[in-house]
Amino acid sequence: MGPPLLERYDAFAFDLDGVIWLADHIIPEAPAAIQAVRDAGRPLLFLTNNASYVPSWIVTRLSEGGIKITEDEILTSAIAARSWIEREGLVGQRAFVLGVQTVVDGVADLLEVVPVKRGTKVGVVLVARDVDLTYERLTAASDAVRDGAVFAASNRDNVMPIPGGFEPGTGSILAAVEAASNRKAIALGKPELPMMQAAADRLGTTGVLMVGDRCDSDVAGARRIGWDAALVMTGVTRPGDPLEPPPDYVLTTLADLTAARD
Amino acid sequence: MGPPLLERYDAFAFDLDGVIWLADHIIPEAPAAIQAVRDAGRPLLFLTNNASYVPSWIVTRLSEGGIKITEDEILTSAIAARSWIEREGLVGQRAFVLGVQTVVDGVADLLEVVPVKRGTKVGVVLVARDVDLTYERLTAASDAVRDGAVFAASNRDNVMPIPGGFEPGTGSILAAVEAASNRKAIALGKPELPMMQAAADRLGTTGVLMVGDRCDSDVAGARRIGWDAALVMTGVTRPGDPLEPPPDYVLTTLADLTAARD
Repeated sequence: MGPPLLERYDAFAFDLDGVIWLADHIIPEAPAAIQAVRDAGRPLLFLTNNASYVPSWIVTRLSEGGIKITEDEILTSAIAARSWIEREGLVGQRAFVLGVQTVVDGVADLLEVVPVKRGTKVGVVLVARDVDLTYERLTAASDAVRDGAVFAASNRDNVMPIPGGFEPGTGSILAAVEAASNRKAIALGKPELPMMQAAADRLGTTGVLMVGDRCDSDVAGARRIGWDAALVMTGVTRPGDPLEPPPDYVLTTLADLTAARD
Repeated sequence: MGPPLLERYDAFAFDLDGVIWLADHIIPEAPAAIQAVRDAGRPLLFLTNNASYVPSWIVTRLSEGGIKITEDEILTSAIAARSWIEREGLVGQRAFVLGVQTVVDGVADLLEVVPVKRGTKVGVVLVARDVDLTYERLTAASDAVRDGAVFAASNRDNVMPIPGGFEPGTGSILAAVEAASNRKAIALGKPELPMMQAAADRLGTTGVLMVGDRCDSDVAGARRIGWDAALVMTGVTRPGDPLEPPPDYVLTTLADLTAARD
């Protein structure tokens, strides 16, 4: 038996939804696995496409679940969106944000976020998982995109894992806006390079194992930046689902990180 | 100059939205063109993907706009849906219908239509242009489709033409449900063969010209059943848009039907 995965890598990047927690429950095997990474002296990073999570809230929630981290160990697609707004010279533009209040708050100092209503002219449309979605909001966003607004999305994840099932993800809302506007958005989160590059910069090493529950964002993101990838079966991916792109490892739970391997 | 299009075909099929009317306005050239088809003794059929139009309402509305037709000259995607429900043995099944009340009414004697709420088990999910769309409805429909409900849509038209612009079409709502459920719906309207075959049966001749405003539904539907197709520029398609599949003719307005041609 060879050494466990934990000893084979210099650093670890973990997705949150479906890996560390599922809706309001910490996944049982997560605290010990994260503690083992700490005990081994490996740097780690939590990497989430969910733009509605504020870093300070993530820190508090993980702390209550027995996982101690700092805010600089967190990278969200909202943080990636902020970098993108600055890099693209969009600071100060009027914007529609299809997403919950924390997503709006996350960019409110950079963009002039206005109510999503028909007839309003905006320069930017930013799509996240919009639980307030209505036909009116879909129409207003589609009109703005068709009229030439810069069009971005926090990610393309079609679903969000919840206990016993799924909820529509950003990718689902985005599919409707893209269809109605006949334009494709720029995706900012995993697996896109801007977010993966920012993650690599934070970790500062190339010997990274990305641990996620989705091939299309976590495994594909790892591939794009040259990391290895482990798929854990506690989230979106279920036994029998196609693995595309294929991960280097499949883990039943995070406990497999510390188990000896063939 | 050769004879006008009107004299070259044995029968005519007309789309409604963007061809005969645009939102609440009859397109100015339409009444005279339809009258010319009548005067030439050619059979005609109005063929719409809009499942929310009830035939008796279409008759009244066209009559008020100076166009006299009978109900048997109308084929809607709701009529196609009724045939599909019977053919597939789905009569009596519980169903979610994402669409306006007229769409629900159109199938209410064949399906047990229940409120679109999470946790409700249904055997059929039928998607149309749902102007009452919410995240809750999207979630409930996606759950039902993922759980194995028969999944159909009145059409795949991404937009609906309105004066000066567009509104999200059935295809936009459908894109969100398909993304969140990871399943593809069966489309019942144009350009699918069931609706086109029903139209051909009604007209009873092969020398048909389909006149529509969309290549992807009207022209493609005509191709599938072996008709010629004319694209009229009073609806969705604008100058410079790609023509795929290409129509046999492009008309500025329906007045071009009666003009002499090269």
